[in-house]
Amino acid sequence: MAKYTISFLPHNRTISVEPGTNLLRAALEAGVHINASCGGEGVCGKCRVLVEKGSLEGGGKEKLRADDWDKGYRLACKSKVVEDVTVRVPVESVVDASVLNLAAMPRKTASATQIHLDELKEAGLFIPPVEERYLTLAPPTHEDNICDMTRLINCLRKDFNERRLVVDLAVLRKLPDVLRQSDFAVTVALSRPVRQDGRTRIINVQPGDTTNENYAIAIDIGTTTVYGQLVDLLTGEVLAEHGEFNAQISYGEDVITRIMYAEKPGGLDKLNEVIVGTINKIIGKILAKSKVNPDEVTAVALAGNTTMTQLFVKINPSYIRRAPYVPAASIYPMIKATDLGLALPDHVTALIYPCISSYVGGDIVSGVMGSGMYLSDELTLFIDIGTNAEIVVGNKDWMMCAAASAGPAFEGGGVEHGMRATKGAIEDFSLDPVTFEPMNLTIGNQRPKGICGSGLIIMLAKMFILGVINNQGKFNRDLPTDRIRERDGAWEFVVARAADTQIDRDLTLSEIDIENLIRAKGAMYAAYMTLLTQVGLTIDQIDRIILAGGFGSFVDLESAMTIGLLPETDPDKVTYLGNGSLMGARMSILTNKVRADVVEVTRKMTNVELSEAPGYMDNYVASLFLPHTDINQFPRLKERLDQRNKVLQNR
Amino acid sequence: MAKYTISFLPHNRTISVEPGTNLLRAALEAGVHINASCGGEGVCGKCRVLVEKGSLEGGGKEKLRADDWDKGYRLACKSKVVEDVTVRVPVESVVDASVLNLAAMPRKTASATQIHLDELKEAGLFIPPVEERYLTLAPPTHEDNICDMTRLINCLRKDFNERRLVVDLAVLRKLPDVLRQSDFAVTVALSRPVRQDGRTRIINVQPGDTTNENYAIAIDIGTTTVYGQLVDLLTGEVLAEHGEFNAQISYGEDVITRIMYAEKPGGLDKLNEVIVGTINKIIGKILAKSKVNPDEVTAVALAGNTTMTQLFVKINPSYIRRAPYVPAASIYPMIKATDLGLALPDHVTALIYPCISSYVGGDIVSGVMGSGMYLSDELTLFIDIGTNAEIVVGNKDWMMCAAASAGPAFEGGGVEHGMRATKGAIEDFSLDPVTFEPMNLTIGNQRPKGICGSGLIIMLAKMFILGVINNQGKFNRDLPTDRIRERDGAWEFVVARAADTQIDRDLTLSEIDIENLIRAKGAMYAAYMTLLTQVGLTIDQIDRIILAGGFGSFVDLESAMTIGLLPETDPDKVTYLGNGSLMGARMSILTNKVRADVVEVTRKMTNVELSEAPGYMDNYVASLFLPHTDINQFPRLKERLDQRNKVLQNR
Repeated sequence: MAKYTISFLPHNRTISVEPGTNLLRAALEAGVHINASCGGEGVCGKCRVLVEKGSLEGGGKEKLRADDWDKGYRLACKSKVVEDVTVRVPVESVVDASVLNLAAMPRKTASATQIHLDELKEAGLFIPPVEERYLTLAPPTHEDNICDMTRLINCLRKDFNERRLVVDLAVLRKLPDVLRQSDFAVTVALSRPVRQDGRTRIINVQPGDTTNENYAIAIDIGTTTVYGQLVDLLTGEVLAEHGEFNAQISYGEDVITRIMYAEKPGGLDKLNEVIVGTINKIIGKILAKSKVNPDEVTAVALAGNTTMTQLFVKINPSYIRRAPYVPAASIYPMIKATDLGLALPDHVTALIYPCISSYVGGDIVSGVMGSGMYLSDELTLFIDIGTNAEIVVGNKDWMMCAAASAGPAFEGGGVEHGMRATKGAIEDFSLDPVTFEPMNLTIGNQRPKGICGSGLIIMLAKMFILGVINNQGKFNRDLPTDRIRERDGAWEFVVARAADTQIDRDLTLSEIDIENLIRAKGAMYAAYMTLLTQVGLTIDQIDRIILAGGFGSFVDLESAMTIGLLPETDPDKVTYLGNGSLMGARMSILTNKVRADVVEVTRKMTNVELSEAPGYMDNYVASLFLPHTDINQFPRLKERLDQRNKVLQNR
Repeated sequence: MAKYTISFLPHNRTISVEPGTNLLRAALEAGVHINASCGGEGVCGKCRVLVEKGSLEGGGKEKLRADDWDKGYRLACKSKVVEDVTVRVPVESVVDASVLNLAAMPRKTASATQIHLDELKEAGLFIPPVEERYLTLAPPTHEDNICDMTRLINCLRKDFNERRLVVDLAVLRKLPDVLRQSDFAVTVALSRPVRQDGRTRIINVQPGDTTNENYAIAIDIGTTTVYGQLVDLLTGEVLAEHGEFNAQISYGEDVITRIMYAEKPGGLDKLNEVIVGTINKIIGKILAKSKVNPDEVTAVALAGNTTMTQLFVKINPSYIRRAPYVPAASIYPMIKATDLGLALPDHVTALIYPCISSYVGGDIVSGVMGSGMYLSDELTLFIDIGTNAEIVVGNKDWMMCAAASAGPAFEGGGVEHGMRATKGAIEDFSLDPVTFEPMNLTIGNQRPKGICGSGLIIMLAKMFILGVINNQGKFNRDLPTDRIRERDGAWEFVVARAADTQIDRDLTLSEIDIENLIRAKGAMYAAYMTLLTQVGLTIDQIDRIILAGGFGSFVDLESAMTIGLLPETDPDKVTYLGNGSLMGARMSILTNKVRADVVEVTRKMTNVELSEAPGYMDNYVASLFLPHTDINQFPRLKERLDQRNKVLQNR
């Protein structure tokens, strides 16, 4: 589709956007600050812009005085871009361009990784774990009355060159009737071995030709959210997907509290029951959405962190949280889906992703498989950001991994107005470098309720760049704004005043909040650095960074590097994997090779116990600054800060 | 123990017996006829003998007149042999010795085959399918916190050179707690693969050292009776055994009526439920008898005919009884015992013996394995006599098999006073060649209730040899005895008069009964001959005959050859396997090699469909005589008959 160009004045900054883009969002993306308190709901009326050339759709006429409307003023948050347009952002004082540009930092999120089915197919790697074959058997006669099973196997040998076959009990049980119901023309489902020397299992037999229906399910068992995808094994396409909160949440927010619950009498059974329930709910929904007959599902793959995996398989997770932090298993055997309580046909076998250690689990292994980093020459740093940050570094020859407990600050925990990325969460933010008035953009363009992870990162970065906070996260109390204030002995910044929020009180960010955020990012940064040091590499030697996990897709990379949540590197080296765990699970139902490879990868991935690693604590303490005690690790930022200081001195 | 010699006069026949042997039984064994109607209960008082030298214990003083007692008369059936003794059998008329000797035919039963544990062990073939290993693991530390599973596997690799291991779900589930309950000293149960290229499964883990307990169970699923044995896998010894009637009997006497019941709605489920119930009852009994903890049972092997196997596995058996008689499967996969409903621990996998065809089932394959004929150079004829006779001929290089429906005559069906071999059944028999007074010996020495298979064979042979019936099974109506009579238009022989029985009426054998018996033995004989002809062999070329099945152990071989139930051969070539099905099942838990071999044996065994085989009907018709239309197939018998005729002519 054709794109339109927006030119912002007085910044002289242009951006190319899709038709229909919201002007306020476009401004943020271009790094242009427009005051906006109400998150884009059109309540505060602050985001006025003047159209100088071209026109906008909408514009919030009812919120503007008629004469202003006629002059060409529009509310940015209520305007859609429908042609090339030039707009002027009013500034309250005359400020020179360099000051304006202090705030300017175009958004740069990581480009997303996709599974390219065509490439898989071309490479001959589209090998579903279960294939179906339609057989027309010669009916038995007095001269040829070998058993049904041998008749079937002989036909598979002769017509399809199938070898090393074994038969499941359920197939034996139905075979005689199915053969005779269908005049000896049947479809068999063949489950391929994971290992070269394994056997192909005949897992199902159906009357007639049903080879046009063959489906599999991929499941990501997240601590918070569980996702499922239904995949057509004939085409590789995802036919339906669905996510549900992990019903274990009622028994504990994070893995540690879940483990503690599992240690109570009946606790493990309960947690197992509810996660199986959640997965079965998802399976039900995606089957219903896609109108697929459950009997035609032939495979399922599941990935989750070590605790989620053990709770799902029903293995006491207690020793995961106790030193020396030992998980029950790394590589799991193939297990019958029904033995795991899954509401799937008897013939389905579940692949459960292997776990490397207590805190580098199947979700990470799955991400490594989904990202393809295990096949690449490039030195890759794989980072899954969350309450626990998991890191993998390496390439096809070697891999090391580690986990750091970062705490839930970036997911809203320990931050007064922190919240998950749901409607009303401030997800993007800017600050006027002169007036320190904010520009809040919320999910759903509603008045703000709180701040989600990506919003917190941007907010922290902006405040630091503009000198609102210093490198210890303390507010500059001398700035000419009443938004910085002391309340109950703690300093805070008023992000949105009560009237502009949905929470009937001022929405703030305090020094206590910031301290928690710095601790969280410090733990992660120390983890990358310690792991890199262990393998004798510096960040410059890394060819690419892969971000996985919940909020990776929305994170503004420059902001993340500004606060030292990510090491400073070329943003183009960073790609976003999305839900790597789900992607890996799906990869393993698209290509059986992944199932064999994952065993090798698991053996290859060496776990580093950070608490035992030399230098980790030093790295952590050094990381408890914005961005770090050693600013030389952030040369681009250092330059920007120098420029900032020059501008501010010249004002 | 020392043996005693009994000398019988006027026959001048001696026999050596164990101390305490019943004199009447000893007489029969020696081929000496003593009139005896009441089966040995001491009621009829006919079996009087005169002690001429030595003495007897007991003797039925209360049944004899005091003066007879003082003269040295004793009731043979109430006398025990306690020293060398000479007894005179009173004869009602003066008959010369050669006439007496017409009846004389010492009993010759087949010698029994045994499993020789010592030989197995010496040959290195005592390889139980599940072995246990006691491991003392190094507990995890911060420096060595690999997962529990890998720790276990590494130890098995290092300390026991175990390779290619996989782990069961149940082991995963209990491993973390078991390790820590026992300070990382545990016993694992390793299930060996059947095939060389298979994997060893870790099926159980227990705290501490439990390697001194490891048991397995062998089950023979008979149509009538189910037997089980509990085997100690450390020594190979049978610790307990138990048999129960197959509870399916309530739903049909034979396989055909069972199949018909299974075809009714819910019928298959019902029959499956009751056979599983019967097996579980047996398992419960042998565990209780041997005081073995069920958790220490690690393996089970089961063998049954094709119908019993399919009903046990819960596979519709309908097509077994319908042309072209196709079974569901030949080789069964290993199946979890609990998936089959067996009351055994979750870790036990069941071996189900393969079936060759609809009427040559797992019981026969098991017998072939148990007998070892598949390992031998000797040309062997394996015969399982029953309602269906199954025959295998061959050696280690090749094998052919067939089944003939003989009908239940020798098991008591279609014979008015036929009965199973339980208490009160006439099991041995003789006839006075002059008076035609019978000598009945019953199981339990009770007054007779009926005649069991071995009794029928001996009775038929005796009557034929003594000219009571001709070669068509018709009575010689001219004989001077009122025991041969016509009733309701059919001729019969009074075996025991009402007063001497438990049934309050005369116990007889009629020409109709005999016709049914001749048809049954004819079907079997035709089967051997047809199969031998197919492979181009004659009976003389056969090195040995193995008898298996229910009444094989009691069959008097000469009698069986006299009536043409067995081909005439040197009785020393005949061995008795006993319950071959149970023996084979036990062999497969003593030596894992049998589990691999049985797959090869199954592939090797070629089934001949007798109904389709040329010559079978002709052979059958020719076999409907005693012993056969072609007496030249029975040269020894021919000679005896010639002698008989000479004796009878000279009288």
